[in-house]
Amino acid sequence: MSGEMENSAVEARQGVGENVVLVGKKPAMNYVLAVVTQFNGGARSVKVRARGNAISRAVDVAEIARHRFVTDAKVGLIEINSEELSNEDGTRSKVSSIEITLDK
Amino acid sequence: MSGEMENSAVEARQGVGENVVLVGKKPAMNYVLAVVTQFNGGARSVKVRARGNAISRAVDVAEIARHRFVTDAKVGLIEINSEELSNEDGTRSKVSSIEITLDK
Repeated sequence: MSGEMENSAVEARQGVGENVVLVGKKPAMNYVLAVVTQFNGGARSVKVRARGNAISRAVDVAEIARHRFVTDAKVGLIEINSEELSNEDGTRSKVSSIEITLDK
Repeated sequence: MSGEMENSAVEARQGVGENVVLVGKKPAMNYVLAVVTQFNGGARSVKVRARGNAISRAVDVAEIARHRFVTDAKVGLIEINSEELSNEDGTRSKVSSIEITLDK
């Protein structure tokens, strides 16, 4: 997934009034910064989302954010799911996803 | 982490009355089989645990087990945490962990 796709997805989600950080392949601290920025901008709740191999990084992001930067934030609801994606060759494959909600 | 260590960890946890599958570096289906075996053996609840990069695989294991093999199991509590590990050179580093509870 390209960086542009990630950013546009984050913006689309923010547009509907949700504070979402979509975690991809960049270093975890990039996404931690995004979470901290949203809390500093007044958000009471930030959702950290990821798919596939980025799920481990999403957990890192949530843990680093709440232990080191937003120490009054707590882990709220954690949901896991399976999503079906279309591959470039037209086949479909399932990928796991996670959504971790951090609440102040 | 070696296969032996994983197996002994699972057995130790089972010994105290908990049904735990510790997910490591093997293919996800190995751990799915362990989950299915514990449910078939009468367990009402199985915990899927992982640390670090194996977290993504633990989510895959839980999703595959409940969608394909134990279709009456539901995702219960999901906890994330940080654990401090000692490295071989004596330094300590933090690693994220997850525990997904599947309940029948």
